Amino acid sequence: MRVTVNRHSGVPLYRQIAGELRGLILGGHMVAGYRLPPERSLAHDLGVNRATVMQAYDQLRSEGLIVSMTGRGTFVCSERNLHDPRPTVDAGSVPGRTSPPWPILFSDYSNRFTYHDIASANMAQDPGSGIDFATGSPNPKDIPDDLLRRISSKAFASHAFDGKPESPIEGFDELRELLAARMSQRGVSCGASNIMVLSGSEQGIDLCVRTLINPGDVILTEESTFFPALQAFRSAQARIVGVPTDGDGIRADMLEAYCSRLHPKMIYTIPTFQNPTGRTLPAERRRALVETAIRYQCLILEDDPYGDLRYEGEAPIPLAGVENSGYVIYLSTFSKTVAPALRTGWIEADRNVISRLAALRRMIDQRTSASSQRICIELLRGDTIDRHVSTLVETYRRRRDLMEDALRRRAPRGMTWHDPRGGYYIWARLPEGVKAETLLHVCRADGVTFMPGAIFSVEAGDDRHIRLNFARPDTSDVERGIEIVCTHAARMADGRDE
Amino acid sequence: MRVTVNRHSGVPLYRQIAGELRGLILGGHMVAGYRLPPERSLAHDLGVNRATVMQAYDQLRSEGLIVSMTGRGTFVCSERNLHDPRPTVDAGSVPGRTSPPWPILFSDYSNRFTYHDIASANMAQDPGSGIDFATGSPNPKDIPDDLLRRISSKAFASHAFDGKPESPIEGFDELRELLAARMSQRGVSCGASNIMVLSGSEQGIDLCVRTLINPGDVILTEESTFFPALQAFRSAQARIVGVPTDGDGIRADMLEAYCSRLHPKMIYTIPTFQNPTGRTLPAERRRALVETAIRYQCLILEDDPYGDLRYEGEAPIPLAGVENSGYVIYLSTFSKTVAPALRTGWIEADRNVISRLAALRRMIDQRTSASSQRICIELLRGDTIDRHVSTLVETYRRRRDLMEDALRRRAPRGMTWHDPRGGYYIWARLPEGVKAETLLHVCRADGVTFMPGAIFSVEAGDDRHIRLNFARPDTSDVERGIEIVCTHAARMADGRDE
Repeated sequence: MRVTVNRHSGVPLYRQIAGELRGLILGGHMVAGYRLPPERSLAHDLGVNRATVMQAYDQLRSEGLIVSMTGRGTFVCSERNLHDPRPTVDAGSVPGRTSPPWPILFSDYSNRFTYHDIASANMAQDPGSGIDFATGSPNPKDIPDDLLRRISSKAFASHAFDGKPESPIEGFDELRELLAARMSQRGVSCGASNIMVLSGSEQGIDLCVRTLINPGDVILTEESTFFPALQAFRSAQARIVGVPTDGDGIRADMLEAYCSRLHPKMIYTIPTFQNPTGRTLPAERRRALVETAIRYQCLILEDDPYGDLRYEGEAPIPLAGVENSGYVIYLSTFSKTVAPALRTGWIEADRNVISRLAALRRMIDQRTSASSQRICIELLRGDTIDRHVSTLVETYRRRRDLMEDALRRRAPRGMTWHDPRGGYYIWARLPEGVKAETLLHVCRADGVTFMPGAIFSVEAGDDRHIRLNFARPDTSDVERGIEIVCTHAARMADGRDE
Repeated sequence: MRVTVNRHSGVPLYRQIAGELRGLILGGHMVAGYRLPPERSLAHDLGVNRATVMQAYDQLRSEGLIVSMTGRGTFVCSERNLHDPRPTVDAGSVPGRTSPPWPILFSDYSNRFTYHDIASANMAQDPGSGIDFATGSPNPKDIPDDLLRRISSKAFASHAFDGKPESPIEGFDELRELLAARMSQRGVSCGASNIMVLSGSEQGIDLCVRTLINPGDVILTEESTFFPALQAFRSAQARIVGVPTDGDGIRADMLEAYCSRLHPKMIYTIPTFQNPTGRTLPAERRRALVETAIRYQCLILEDDPYGDLRYEGEAPIPLAGVENSGYVIYLSTFSKTVAPALRTGWIEADRNVISRLAALRRMIDQRTSASSQRICIELLRGDTIDRHVSTLVETYRRRRDLMEDALRRRAPRGMTWHDPRGGYYIWARLPEGVKAETLLHVCRADGVTFMPGAIFSVEAGDDRHIRLNFARPDTSDVERGIEIVCTHAARMADGRDE
């Protein structure tokens, strides 16, 4: 939850606080049952009187948006199910009951969740209506209209889908073999027994957290990183510590100090074309990172969704290719190159890890959809996926160049960014005085959306960065989108806005 | 972990204990890193001297199967990755490292897991090699060879799969509408907004546990129930309490006492053609159960995987059709009628629950595979699925009749069972002196497998019941399989065996 107050505005502080909270509730960013911070602690965080927060809460209570329960705290009220169409069923129904007391029924774990991906959530409601620099998945228009259709027809025309459609928990053997072969193309030697097919690589983060992390365990990450990973770590009550980064990613030279002081259980990193910064860890830092982690018996969870989308330079060898004793657990996916709709990714890890994950998955979703797996087998056979990816790389490289060019021409003084060599993202630092969420607000009014940096921030305090996805928008929209962003940023930097 | 000792055997107790543990470890039922009980508590449970357990652990330590760590406990050793084919990658590899210390790296949560589905695990290694009364999914031979192929080709031939392949977290609107319509056929009125498409209904159990259960919360269940549900509840450190049952399922008349005493958070129940007992809760008990639960603000998680497979009698109205204020959360699936390979099920619930699950899923697997969803849309359109299910019902009814008939002719005195009106299972009580796991052991040697009751038991102490799946085997195998089971059971009951 992020609330800010402006002492120089004429609006009373309690109304500002109530207003921000109301917006978060009605906007769906604080869901029903969400536990609000105690008045005292919110007052402390905002540097206001406790009475001010009490007044704000009173206001929201009177509006029926929140409810306080003695000894339990204050919660966002449930939607009243106004549009819930469940009528009474005559046969034996129990009519006229009141609803369950939802705010006190949800688990502590669930109460640690918040929706934070504001920009994409809002955009998703009306896709195609604007210029989307926010959403972290390919533009469906860039996936050839018939690619999935053609591949799917092929996958299911064969008799392989008859008779024995069930795959083992770890995935079809054929797919695991194909993925192991793909891993060796990336510089990681492994066997099919080191691979488990996942329902998206994000699932691998959740499975690893459940299998490896106890409350209180320390996880090191880049200072800004993939939001659902932070969400998974926070929900598991891990202690997340951001390691300082520079233009080349994690400062491997500082890692020793972090490890010796904090004894982390795990380092979560996206070393190649990082999300959100677009940065890539150089080979010597990779080696140093792995060496240090092993010295401290610290596992490495390497997330590599973007590695195939390389626009220049050598292909970096994954951390999993630097290390062979089991410390690196590697995740990848087809979601960034083919379609997130397939929900198919994979994990490469020591067989001890694979067998633990299998035991857990037996209880969760058992295995990845056989139809998705068949489609991926078809994609990986021959050169279908490689041809598709190389077309995509051409398109995305062009958009990256367009965006960089537009930024160079239009960015206001004080706005800086790093040119990525692959992936989806340009991570831009805004000029002094320009706040990311305010900028997003005004840009969205003009039909442009992007991700504010705070979402990715370990400390959630970053209001100076924005993440611009150059791969997602239509090519023809890039110039105009950047113009809008830069114009507003310039105006705000000059103090003409807000 | 289940270990038993036989004081009347000539084998020293410590060797019996070591032998049972060795079997569990080498059989893969206690995975690497599993934390063994402290010597003192295992000694207490078995009613033996602590020194006896110490001797057993010493033995296993000397065999390299377990390892003890001061202050941390005793763990199953990791497999040595003997077959792990990862060679060293030359470029920058860090050679000659030792493996991570796995036993101390896995989470407490993961250490609460054990593989328990012994029968199906063993059978799965060599499918088709014997008579399978164990596996809880349809025999692939009963799914028409071309059903999935035909449906899939149809699903992907259309342009609907082009362009906009991504579904919302909750599932494609069209599928949610079709599922809501199906729910109303079952007697549950709801709207598409009450439905979320799941990657199998088992996922719904995991999601609900994470969203609703805190450690220490009480969950009431039938005394014997679906194993992965027990696994999920145990892993979440819920307190699971079995409510007494009789031939008609949960004793609803005793529920009041359990609720007033224990204040459960949730009742998990399979009211229709229950797994493993095959029993069905009558309408008046359904009403009483729901009334009592609501009075105690206790949620009901209704699991209904088998409802469509009805061989006689009226279709029971689900609990979700008895109640309309939100207390009942309903799960169902296509895994028991079409193919578990689709990994598609659904949840019907109050929208407060749906939105919480969506927030969690955003972090886990985002959504169910679009290809699986498309196949299900195609299945539900028109009458494809209904025609398929009615064929299946004919086949399964015949197998049920065959198995019941064979049991009536061959069961030894003292063996009793309940005739199910639907679903997959006959739950048989063994004669005095016949232990389920011993019987399984000898039957497996003759190529017949089934599930021992202990797997489903809340108290894990049930060694008198076996679950026989009549739906799974080939029709021609039913008679011979029952003959083998009954012959061995009779021999054991007569004391001629063991």
